[in-house]
Amino acid sequence: MPVVGVIGGGQLARMMIPPAINLGLEIRVLAEQEGMAASLAATQVGDYRDLDTVMAFAKGVDVVTFDHEHVPQSVLHALVDAGIAVHPGPDALQYAQDKLLMRQKLTELGLPVPDWAAVENEGELQDFLDAHKGRAVVKTPRGGYDGKGVRVVSAAHEAADWFGTLDEDGRGGALLVEELVGFRRELAQMAARRPSGALAVWPVVETVQKDGVCAEVFAPAPQSAGRVAEVAAQIAVDVAEGLGVTGAFAVELFETNDDRLLINELAMRPHNSGHWSQDGSTTSQFEQHLRAVLDLPLGATGLRDNCTVMINILGGPEHGTVPDRYPAALDKHPTVKVHYYGKEPRPGRKIGHVNSVGDNLDDTVFEAREAASYFQD
Amino acid sequence: MPVVGVIGGGQLARMMIPPAINLGLEIRVLAEQEGMAASLAATQVGDYRDLDTVMAFAKGVDVVTFDHEHVPQSVLHALVDAGIAVHPGPDALQYAQDKLLMRQKLTELGLPVPDWAAVENEGELQDFLDAHKGRAVVKTPRGGYDGKGVRVVSAAHEAADWFGTLDEDGRGGALLVEELVGFRRELAQMAARRPSGALAVWPVVETVQKDGVCAEVFAPAPQSAGRVAEVAAQIAVDVAEGLGVTGAFAVELFETNDDRLLINELAMRPHNSGHWSQDGSTTSQFEQHLRAVLDLPLGATGLRDNCTVMINILGGPEHGTVPDRYPAALDKHPTVKVHYYGKEPRPGRKIGHVNSVGDNLDDTVFEAREAASYFQD
Repeated sequence: MPVVGVIGGGQLARMMIPPAINLGLEIRVLAEQEGMAASLAATQVGDYRDLDTVMAFAKGVDVVTFDHEHVPQSVLHALVDAGIAVHPGPDALQYAQDKLLMRQKLTELGLPVPDWAAVENEGELQDFLDAHKGRAVVKTPRGGYDGKGVRVVSAAHEAADWFGTLDEDGRGGALLVEELVGFRRELAQMAARRPSGALAVWPVVETVQKDGVCAEVFAPAPQSAGRVAEVAAQIAVDVAEGLGVTGAFAVELFETNDDRLLINELAMRPHNSGHWSQDGSTTSQFEQHLRAVLDLPLGATGLRDNCTVMINILGGPEHGTVPDRYPAALDKHPTVKVHYYGKEPRPGRKIGHVNSVGDNLDDTVFEAREAASYFQD
Repeated sequence: MPVVGVIGGGQLARMMIPPAINLGLEIRVLAEQEGMAASLAATQVGDYRDLDTVMAFAKGVDVVTFDHEHVPQSVLHALVDAGIAVHPGPDALQYAQDKLLMRQKLTELGLPVPDWAAVENEGELQDFLDAHKGRAVVKTPRGGYDGKGVRVVSAAHEAADWFGTLDEDGRGGALLVEELVGFRRELAQMAARRPSGALAVWPVVETVQKDGVCAEVFAPAPQSAGRVAEVAAQIAVDVAEGLGVTGAFAVELFETNDDRLLINELAMRPHNSGHWSQDGSTTSQFEQHLRAVLDLPLGATGLRDNCTVMINILGGPEHGTVPDRYPAALDKHPTVKVHYYGKEPRPGRKIGHVNSVGDNLDDTVFEAREAASYFQD
């Protein structure tokens, strides 16, 4: 039986378990600690930065893949050198781990990105601000997620603490600064690619962020049929082939006020913008990821109905936890599918999501929002 | 977090794991042995006929439910007496455990069944044969499944061995004999019922048996809209309420040549005739079963598309196992969903199934059969 080893025990690993069970694949998880979202499949608890831990975990698996992008390059390369299949591989993951490398590579490939620069000090940042109407987005190249490590500034000293940190850790380096893109909305294009090259894309979706965190996803993105869908899909193909991505991945996009699509971020793993596919697509991103990293043929990515709306459960109920609300929520919303990660509620924490599938967007959004409201107060 | 304890480690328990993960429920399995289909969730290995084993397993669970109907009444009653929720409960399960009791009860309730009798010896069986054109179906009341314990006879001595066994085990008792029903096709009606009474039915399906084993299921049953669907659904409601069934259950039906629906068998658990719902219905039978036994509101049971065809993988490949065929099968059939139970191939053994969802039956049947053929040779 094929064995997939997943590094990281969060909800993305958790949500790989159902399709692994369906397909009769063995899934093993290296969790950071006991009691994590994916603990049911955790065969080992340990530090993914420790080579011995990871090598022991990788023994006997057919492929190593990931719940997150934080495994150090040195560990990834050691796995590859030991002849272990790693997907996505270190050469692709470096671009997800370092936003400066990512911007450089995408620019080399001629892919559409916001104006950007690597800035090593406040003077260089001020030069960029002066050339971009006095406002810009500064990002720490490494370690950011869900809006962390991202800041809009209108003066160079507003990033002084981050420049200080660059000096402190002795690595030197630079911050990434990007133009503040005037965008109409944010889109996300998910796809999956096999090591042998085949690629499948889902319909492009619209994502709505609140406080830098994904809150709602509409699949497909309204008014995206035709040009927008084609351009977004082609960008995903170009990214995957240009960067050597394998497995499921997401390209977060700005749809600009002047009708361009610009690449905002990349995620080289299943992604929040693809959770809708669990109930709304013939093949979910989690099943597709397993198929892709095992180099098995990819599943069909069509919609099961006209649209699907995903809404994150952020924070959770003030008292009790998600299942405490099932008697009321499931009674009112028999068609909505609730996904709960078994995580304790905490302000701002992603602890679950709901998917609503329907034949028109208005009703489907309403249904999803009403259902999600039972789990947040 | 609600905890569901499942007695029995087969594929039905296995297929409860994905919806438990989705809903954030804890699922624990008491498996008969190591390495069974549901081993991922097995927290204990032991004999379900042993009271101490079952009582230890039941400690700390919110409800005990089942992968099969074979737990002895004495064990079931001890659980109930200890204040543990058991669904379906012993009073319902007795009818699934003893076909004579079942026939008696259904007859009392006025539900449509074939002519039947309890026969204690060859003389009584011969009387029944003489009254029914010389042919009938003899069944052992207990322990039969997948065509085992069922025999068509045209002379009483053909059941001599079974009468002998009745004597041997000292329990006396009788065999069940039923008229040989002239039927057009077999149907199955699945439904689920909460302890508090609410009930949800899926569309009635057509089942095709080969050698007494379910081979194919068409959902919904062709030409069933209207009267057939209504009558079948009402039978399921009457059975559930009359016998006090809780959880997901199946009523196997004959559609007779003279347009009646007669109850053939009952299964008080998720059932092979409901596997199509994993991909073809808004709520799968496995999710619904968990919701029902926890007395949570039931999910919508509508079809996701016009039809779904389920085909069992019986026996499996002659060489290797199911995943060995994925490179070829998944490549040709990207829309088909394969379910493999992790069981070793063995002639006649149910080791998995495929579901194909589509908008017309002809294409969907073709797709499902073609896909299934990759796993059987």
